[in-house]
Amino acid sequence: MSLPRRDFFTRLGGLALASRWGMFSGPETDNKNAASLDPGVKAGQSGLRPVGYAIIGLGRVSLGQFLPGLRFAHHARPVALVSGSRGKAEIIARRYGIPFQNIYNYGDFDRIAENPAIEAVYVALPNSLHAEFTERAARAGKHVLCEKPMAASVADAETMIAACRRARRWLMIAYRCQYDPVTRRLRDLARGGELGRLQIINAHFGFDISPFYTVMGVTRPEWRLNHAMSGGGPLVDVGIYCLNGSRFVSGEEPAGVTAAKSVSGRDPRFRSVDENLAWTFHFPSGLLAACSTSYGCNLGEAMQVTGAAGQLRLAPAFGYASQKLAGFTRSGRVLYGPHDPGPHQFAAEADHLAECIRHNRAPFTPGEEGLRDMRWIERIYQAARRA
Amino acid sequence: MSLPRRDFFTRLGGLALASRWGMFSGPETDNKNAASLDPGVKAGQSGLRPVGYAIIGLGRVSLGQFLPGLRFAHHARPVALVSGSRGKAEIIARRYGIPFQNIYNYGDFDRIAENPAIEAVYVALPNSLHAEFTERAARAGKHVLCEKPMAASVADAETMIAACRRARRWLMIAYRCQYDPVTRRLRDLARGGELGRLQIINAHFGFDISPFYTVMGVTRPEWRLNHAMSGGGPLVDVGIYCLNGSRFVSGEEPAGVTAAKSVSGRDPRFRSVDENLAWTFHFPSGLLAACSTSYGCNLGEAMQVTGAAGQLRLAPAFGYASQKLAGFTRSGRVLYGPHDPGPHQFAAEADHLAECIRHNRAPFTPGEEGLRDMRWIERIYQAARRA
Repeated sequence: MSLPRRDFFTRLGGLALASRWGMFSGPETDNKNAASLDPGVKAGQSGLRPVGYAIIGLGRVSLGQFLPGLRFAHHARPVALVSGSRGKAEIIARRYGIPFQNIYNYGDFDRIAENPAIEAVYVALPNSLHAEFTERAARAGKHVLCEKPMAASVADAETMIAACRRARRWLMIAYRCQYDPVTRRLRDLARGGELGRLQIINAHFGFDISPFYTVMGVTRPEWRLNHAMSGGGPLVDVGIYCLNGSRFVSGEEPAGVTAAKSVSGRDPRFRSVDENLAWTFHFPSGLLAACSTSYGCNLGEAMQVTGAAGQLRLAPAFGYASQKLAGFTRSGRVLYGPHDPGPHQFAAEADHLAECIRHNRAPFTPGEEGLRDMRWIERIYQAARRA
Repeated sequence: MSLPRRDFFTRLGGLALASRWGMFSGPETDNKNAASLDPGVKAGQSGLRPVGYAIIGLGRVSLGQFLPGLRFAHHARPVALVSGSRGKAEIIARRYGIPFQNIYNYGDFDRIAENPAIEAVYVALPNSLHAEFTERAARAGKHVLCEKPMAASVADAETMIAACRRARRWLMIAYRCQYDPVTRRLRDLARGGELGRLQIINAHFGFDISPFYTVMGVTRPEWRLNHAMSGGGPLVDVGIYCLNGSRFVSGEEPAGVTAAKSVSGRDPRFRSVDENLAWTFHFPSGLLAACSTSYGCNLGEAMQVTGAAGQLRLAPAFGYASQKLAGFTRSGRVLYGPHDPGPHQFAAEADHLAECIRHNRAPFTPGEEGLRDMRWIERIYQAARRA
């Protein structure tokens, strides 16, 4: 599994696989992309023994993104599944060549401690369960890759960090955009002074949420609309990309925040979470980030960064692929991406944690990074309640 | 001057003239555009006697926009100039065929009362002078078309309304975008339910201001950077387009506002006014408008309106021409504008007030509309100071 990417593609029938995530339309440009990644996430360079992941929660992101993405990983592979539905887990296990004895449920999950094939877990459960399963995984001696938002509360996030520290296991939050080469190019140009002094970031991400969702033929009420399970509305789900993106691109922590939220009409979807939210970060340098998010409309996604010497617009900004950067800087026009096929964001994340495990170094997006966002989420909601 | 547009074009050499405002590249589409305007501003339909305007202040907007624009007006023409520079005024008078006896300065300005050729004035002075010259014009028995922002303070705006009411003269604020057919199409679609319930407006308008400006070879410090003359920073100058636009498109008055402002670095331009400002309006329906403005960077200009059933983006949004509307609504794709040449926005304004004078009816954007924006500007600054 540690073949150079091109060989790996050829072996598995690259075109067919790549088209599963809807990207492939020409020759690989991956090596060029990889060059812009941090050394820690440069792909396909070593002969590392792959890390076996247990996937906890077989929902949309696991089935639609993470498991298919692992086929493009160099140092990570799925070796176990954790699900409340044995039937579903067996179908998925067969699809990915996972032995049935490596299927766990939420009750017997702690037995993963006895399975040395599992070195890490990928937590893709409703947000309110992130803390419990991160703690249990750490106690079982496993490293943790946890989906964003890190948790449903600041307290949970702190508990997760403490648990992994105690167990001496890495905790990484799945901020896939921080591993995306186009987003990194934006960060490099912005932090490198190519835009002059940063002045205004405009970012938005929102969509019209369905009250139900369907996975493998089973339809359920959308847990993201249930505050007890989500810990918040569109902010914690998609607005967090604007939040994390503005911190990532600027390299600053906000000095303050203002916010306003709303529910329009008597939409039954918004009984426990808000529908629309807009907030502004005021950074110490004077940079302002004006952000908005929604579950009530197809707001789309973009991040525009304007400095005294130029402007760059990332759009699409936060999708699973096809990020595109365009605008002008001190040095001239920029047009970067979308890359065909580009690295698979979920493969890049899984590989990164695997390399951290093998080389015993901290992930680029550790629990502390998730905790910072959780604290800002809390402050945004506080500001919106005051407004 | 009340010829149908096509004849008027031919007579004055339409192509050459139109190219002065950089628009002409094909056959006229003006009749189509006019159909979307309110009855009160439908062009070229009547044989109204043109209204003579005195232009007060021969600066950038008068010389670059209003006077050239009047060549495209049907019911308005320049008949007098008011300037502190007799030499400059004579050059301009010669260019526009205005008799030298109709040149006034700021001292003898009140003599316009004795000149029946002047029925209206166009106030294009630094903001802090709008109140004085509007009052003096009203006292002289003239109707007033006043540039935005209406004034440098709420108190001044109230005084202006009272003065014009007392004198029984119309006061119109030059919100040219409210007379632009592409912006009006956006309003009609948004208010007509074509976007479903409105959820989020994202708007921004800003530019990197020069500390100096030059008019006819004379260079002066930028008065817009002098708070005593401007009454505010980028908000009152260009942010006001986002402010007025979100009110115009939604048809709602905000229920509340949050805001943050900043000055980055020790830029000498920003000794008395702010550099960057972001604010959010919370409308009673639940609509949020996230707006930003800047004098420190070329932020550009766009207004995106997203409802539960669609999204429309106006970009360019607030320029003197070339507005373009694109997106999707309940009924399908929208692509409207830019119109070549499209109505000249300044001609449309001047014609509108002329028609109001002839038909004795209130302007579509009266002083009260300007006052509402002045009050919101005040509240935005209050909120930014609290933040």
